[in-house]
Amino acid sequence: MKRMGLLTSGGDCGGLNAVIKGAAKMAGSMGIEMMVIPNGYAGLYNLIEMDSLTSLTPERLMQIDVTLAGSEAGHSRVKIKKIDNPDKYQRIKDGLKKFGIEGLVISGGDDTGSVIVDLAENGIPCIHVPKTMDLDLQSYSVGGDSAINRIAAFVRDLKTTGNSHNRVLVTEVFGRYAGHTAFRGGIAAEADCILLPEIPADFDVVYEHMKREFTARIRSSDVRKGTYSIVVAEGMTDAKGEAIADESAGKDSFGHVKLAGAGKYVRKQLESRMKEDPEIKEFMKDVGMFVPDVYESPEIREVNPGHLVRCGHSSAYDTVFGFEAGAAGVVLLESGTTGVTVVGVESGEISYQPTAEVIKQRHVDLSEIALYEKLGFCFGRKPEEYKPNLQAHKGHIKRHV
Amino acid sequence: MKRMGLLTSGGDCGGLNAVIKGAAKMAGSMGIEMMVIPNGYAGLYNLIEMDSLTSLTPERLMQIDVTLAGSEAGHSRVKIKKIDNPDKYQRIKDGLKKFGIEGLVISGGDDTGSVIVDLAENGIPCIHVPKTMDLDLQSYSVGGDSAINRIAAFVRDLKTTGNSHNRVLVTEVFGRYAGHTAFRGGIAAEADCILLPEIPADFDVVYEHMKREFTARIRSSDVRKGTYSIVVAEGMTDAKGEAIADESAGKDSFGHVKLAGAGKYVRKQLESRMKEDPEIKEFMKDVGMFVPDVYESPEIREVNPGHLVRCGHSSAYDTVFGFEAGAAGVVLLESGTTGVTVVGVESGEISYQPTAEVIKQRHVDLSEIALYEKLGFCFGRKPEEYKPNLQAHKGHIKRHV
Amino acid sequence: MKRMGLLTSGGDCGGLNAVIKGAAKMAGSMGIEMMVIPNGYAGLYNLIEMDSLTSLTPERLMQIDVTLAGSEAGHSRVKIKKIDNPDKYQRIKDGLKKFGIEGLVISGGDDTGSVIVDLAENGIPCIHVPKTMDLDLQSYSVGGDSAINRIAAFVRDLKTTGNSHNRVLVTEVFGRYAGHTAFRGGIAAEADCILLPEIPADFDVVYEHMKREFTARIRSSDVRKGTYSIVVAEGMTDAKGEAIADESAGKDSFGHVKLAGAGKYVRKQLESRMKEDPEIKEFMKDVGMFVPDVYESPEIREVNPGHLVRCGHSSAYDTVFGFEAGAAGVVLLESGTTGVTVVGVESGEISYQPTAEVIKQRHVDLSEIALYEKLGFCFGRKPEEYKPNLQAHKGHIKRHV
Amino acid sequence: MKRMGLLTSGGDCGGLNAVIKGAAKMAGSMGIEMMVIPNGYAGLYNLIEMDSLTSLTPERLMQIDVTLAGSEAGHSRVKIKKIDNPDKYQRIKDGLKKFGIEGLVISGGDDTGSVIVDLAENGIPCIHVPKTMDLDLQSYSVGGDSAINRIAAFVRDLKTTGNSHNRVLVTEVFGRYAGHTAFRGGIAAEADCILLPEIPADFDVVYEHMKREFTARIRSSDVRKGTYSIVVAEGMTDAKGEAIADESAGKDSFGHVKLAGAGKYVRKQLESRMKEDPEIKEFMKDVGMFVPDVYESPEIREVNPGHLVRCGHSSAYDTVFGFEAGAAGVVLLESGTTGVTVVGVESGEISYQPTAEVIKQRHVDLSEIALYEKLGFCFGRKPEEYKPNLQAHKGHIKRHV
Repeated sequence: MKRMGLLTSGGDCGGLNAVIKGAAKMAGSMGIEMMVIPNGYAGLYNLIEMDSLTSLTPERLMQIDVTLAGSEAGHSRVKIKKIDNPDKYQRIKDGLKKFGIEGLVISGGDDTGSVIVDLAENGIPCIHVPKTMDLDLQSYSVGGDSAINRIAAFVRDLKTTGNSHNRVLVTEVFGRYAGHTAFRGGIAAEADCILLPEIPADFDVVYEHMKREFTARIRSSDVRKGTYSIVVAEGMTDAKGEAIADESAGKDSFGHVKLAGAGKYVRKQLESRMKEDPEIKEFMKDVGMFVPDVYESPEIREVNPGHLVRCGHSSAYDTVFGFEAGAAGVVLLESGTTGVTVVGVESGEISYQPTAEVIKQRHVDLSEIALYEKLGFCFGRKPEEYKPNLQAHKGHIKRHV
Repeated sequence: MKRMGLLTSGGDCGGLNAVIKGAAKMAGSMGIEMMVIPNGYAGLYNLIEMDSLTSLTPERLMQIDVTLAGSEAGHSRVKIKKIDNPDKYQRIKDGLKKFGIEGLVISGGDDTGSVIVDLAENGIPCIHVPKTMDLDLQSYSVGGDSAINRIAAFVRDLKTTGNSHNRVLVTEVFGRYAGHTAFRGGIAAEADCILLPEIPADFDVVYEHMKREFTARIRSSDVRKGTYSIVVAEGMTDAKGEAIADESAGKDSFGHVKLAGAGKYVRKQLESRMKEDPEIKEFMKDVGMFVPDVYESPEIREVNPGHLVRCGHSSAYDTVFGFEAGAAGVVLLESGTTGVTVVGVESGEISYQPTAEVIKQRHVDLSEIALYEKLGFCFGRKPEEYKPNLQAHKGHIKRHV
Repeated sequence: MKRMGLLTSGGDCGGLNAVIKGAAKMAGSMGIEMMVIPNGYAGLYNLIEMDSLTSLTPERLMQIDVTLAGSEAGHSRVKIKKIDNPDKYQRIKDGLKKFGIEGLVISGGDDTGSVIVDLAENGIPCIHVPKTMDLDLQSYSVGGDSAINRIAAFVRDLKTTGNSHNRVLVTEVFGRYAGHTAFRGGIAAEADCILLPEIPADFDVVYEHMKREFTARIRSSDVRKGTYSIVVAEGMTDAKGEAIADESAGKDSFGHVKLAGAGKYVRKQLESRMKEDPEIKEFMKDVGMFVPDVYESPEIREVNPGHLVRCGHSSAYDTVFGFEAGAAGVVLLESGTTGVTVVGVESGEISYQPTAEVIKQRHVDLSEIALYEKLGFCFGRKPEEYKPNLQAHKGHIKRHV
Repeated sequence: MKRMGLLTSGGDCGGLNAVIKGAAKMAGSMGIEMMVIPNGYAGLYNLIEMDSLTSLTPERLMQIDVTLAGSEAGHSRVKIKKIDNPDKYQRIKDGLKKFGIEGLVISGGDDTGSVIVDLAENGIPCIHVPKTMDLDLQSYSVGGDSAINRIAAFVRDLKTTGNSHNRVLVTEVFGRYAGHTAFRGGIAAEADCILLPEIPADFDVVYEHMKREFTARIRSSDVRKGTYSIVVAEGMTDAKGEAIADESAGKDSFGHVKLAGAGKYVRKQLESRMKEDPEIKEFMKDVGMFVPDVYESPEIREVNPGHLVRCGHSSAYDTVFGFEAGAAGVVLLESGTTGVTVVGVESGEISYQPTAEVIKQRHVDLSEIALYEKLGFCFGRKPEEYKPNLQAHKGHIKRHV
């Protein structure tokens, strides 16, 4: 190929600028020109109407800072399937032809990936570089590690507020179908309770755990201080396994119901139990917090950092993985492969899998949850047994770094 | 005095642990024992029922990390005035007597300060160390600089999200009556528009500014990328000068209506204007973003970091000021002064003012706004003229560091 | 004026990009074009040989991120006085004339300022915007607050290393003639000992303080853990009041002897005392650390963050001050004033003072040190008495924010 | 077992407090008491002389913040092999018996691991939890990811200094035998050149790369601005493959020669080439930086963050891995296994390998280097060909998160 196009699509996150730079530099080293298709699939669809495209020359690449999250190529949440135009693939092909673009490197998540499958089926050579901070693809995807680190920092920081006010703090984070980042971010901040889409929440279990831990901390503190922290993925499910949707929130451009209010829901579930529990009043009196009519029950606050968990700087791992995955995408595309996802780059090997397989949802492995339940964390269910298999490992150990 | 008590009250923020440590260490150096009154006024009211108090001995002080925000002494939002007990001041005096506490160092904001006035009038020696991240007291108060730095970091970070998606981002921060932190945090992150309680917002002005800046950025970008960022204080006022209250939010324990939804309100004001503006569609088409029925108008997102702006670590200034103000409070209390606030500590001088005066609300100085309007920032009003007085300064220059 | 030039000079630090942007935007609003003179005085001297200069148009300004430290205009350590060319001022004037530049806004420290005095005397209109992370000018200067915050974060972070290894940690930071940033950064991190150029260090005093605090911490810890942290300004002086110069380090381009090794010097002073002190061995045995021939004395490590304290991001205060000071510089220059420094911008007033006065060295106020000695900090001297004047403050309180 | 002991040894780093807490909580859940052996092997050796040990009860564990780097259990660099006492293992056994400790969970690196092999051979049941920020064991070890993230942040931040002064910046980081963290931290910050122990440095190659990139940046910048950044591992080797040792630095308590001066060495190598290169002067003149006798060659600065790369906070990955590895260590120890290292914890499986095997040095995989050479990074050698094997991956994809 002489010229490739690069686009990023779906939600922004860490590592994408390294994908862009890795892809463009690898292309450059192979004598291929890399063009930016701006604004994700919106730009791809409108290519035919554009006057010019930006080429990622060495000089232009100097302006891209790989340590920053987000994408210099721009995103949009436009999904090709939703466009009501029977000639849309022809329009895209015409646009690519206009600019002499022979193949595409596309970085995105499951929705993005499903379009890649379509594009490849429509004869447009393309390679998928996995990206989603939700980590709900089968392979690792850029953005996940950055999000986990930011969630952990926020949940950790909020403990100073919780400890000052003896408050329970509920932090709601992204995570529609899978709770990977809530899980790992929560563990890394040593949250007390983590509620995931994968485990229907039993609030009686949560309440008992909270009451026991929270009151024990304040009682054992010589300055009567303590907090309890909960991390909840937006896609958490109630006891019936249903997501907590906010009726007023509408749908996004991919047709998904907007989830909202998981944090608020958790707060209300716990507040109502706390207010009805006579032992809470007794506890408040015992530790000297109780003031009649004014302060009869500890406060619960919910915080929703929203896009703060995906912006700012990339984690080191995401930048490194991004460089490698972007570069690998170009090597695969040049080799004639299409419709596949980069799933590994190590020791001189690039491994890939059909995008259609990689975009199948991957959930948190519940056998890992049991380990953390042994360590005292609550996941909104009765703890299950942890019976690990002890296995002697022979020979070389694979590492991610 | 042989024994003093220390309490912190109101919202948590940076610098408080330095206040505690500064006060306790100064007391120790003067042969005075400093006791923690836990949980703010709740603890003060319930002192009489407590079995023991914690003394801030050198060994106990080792456990307090002054670099962390929040208060080791604990807060509550209990306001003495709201307690329906005619003998409440006697109850407090009895509690203090029980533990041999002869005076109080109290750190808090305007509500806290009003109680200090009451306590002093009721014969309880007390000194006020100013604390409020809102900076709406007459003097500087610990917590303000920390909050400004955190707001600035969040607004800055969110630009990677805004630039990736060509989104307008609205960040709502605390600031009920005064917009000091929204103002300075917003400037420090170079937000484009800052909406404060002090200036009724004219959304036609905001919209025109946004449209001009936002579209110019995307048009001038070779990858069709741009954002526009707005910082709004929760207490912002609409064109009629009324705060944006969320009817469902209720009141807090100080009797304040809970403000909520300023960010959402801003978003809706701008979204509706954008959707009705035919030039926006034209712009979207010009830059290749437009996709019929799917993407016809740029997105606006609001983010509400909530308690994230007051938690975590203290800024250096707040820690240093906290040490000095806490220490000064002890010196003043020991000297026999009462009912006053520490308003300055420098060059061997401690200055103070009656708390009743210091807690009068201080608003953002609108003459500073005009300077920033010259620099292109929007404050939701038509820019006013900036005609600074040029003044030769003679002699020593006062500095805050 | 129709066209001004802007240059930054001396060491890099936080807030400078806001100075540039504030100046350029204020100029723009007054119909004046602002040109970048690249690389400080090197660029000024070579202006006559340049083909073109960059104008800070609104579009060009978009590329400058005010939240980043350092200067988009570039620095050099070139000092005009050191240039051996009798026609140098004429050469500069010719360069300015070539590009139609009628006046200069120059941001820098004391060396930079002394050139400003020269330039003004040579008929080149210029205004000084104070910048030095050392804070050793009479007025506040951009960069100081950023440096203090970074020093504080580093010293704080190093405590995890100190506590893990029961080590004494010595952090050496910039500060040639004045210890403002070592002082305030050290206090903000609650360092135990701070050594400044202003106070000749008595290492017997330091050693006794260290021994008492360090051993008490480890003894009182149930896991035998403790550290002691020292912050030392590079320009610290020994008992004779002489700076610790590293003979091998040479001189910089301003002719200053390069200071080096203050941290190492401190380490060696304390190590030798510790090794000769039989009580240290006893202490090691008491707490179970002692292993004959292998571990007989606690370790001391020095860390020299160097340029890390001045790079990265600006603090919020420096960005805000930078905007204002840069803008004020333009207003003053346009008004016909020359050879002066911006010393304050507030409430619609811009105050200034002759640069020749402002660049006189300002040292740490020793009356502030006495307060911290009362709080237990060591400054390498026997603590002096702290007898503050208690002063009722009347009327409006001036604040820096 | 009824009682286990836990010790941490070697250099401090991120994730260790999670190891401690994970081990203690897993032990607690199995009815086993976990005791802290303070100060690493020093404490183990002196156990027999101690009066008491601290038990990691739930209440005591509240004081341990897993988000902080370093170890609450304390380290020392004492190596049992270096102790000249024929009865040392008996002394250790007696100490363990005195406190009823039946087995040990030990976290440390290769030196620590070699002692574990000895201890196990001497009949002391023990399990190794891998820890070393250098990542030079066969398995992943806590601390590596944290160090990589911190190195990346420092190298990134220093670019603002480099760009302001058109300086080359050399950052020296830990890495005695293996350059994993220099490599990945450098890539994540997009350093231009990375020098590792694994690749003897050819400074002619480095110089040519630097000259080309550095001068191109400044030439192409409209404000004549640019930098070039180098990350060097302390154990880098010169053209003969020999480490750069500072003759004055002596040996550490493990008998290793203290490495020092790699950064300084790199600086001098490049400075001397630059000064002799007439094209550099020409370049300086072309871009307007040259001032005769004052500024004839760009500056190079080296920065040595030292312990700053291992202190502060843990990365999320290290905290999560730490919890799991610590917990797994207890499960293995209780199961009767000894002398092995935890090498993986996932999906309900704990895998282990003999410690003697795991502590064999693991170096940076040079086939990964070739990929980055294609992307334009310099590793101090002539770039080698990158010919990756393209491999379709079947079935489940293993991930580290």
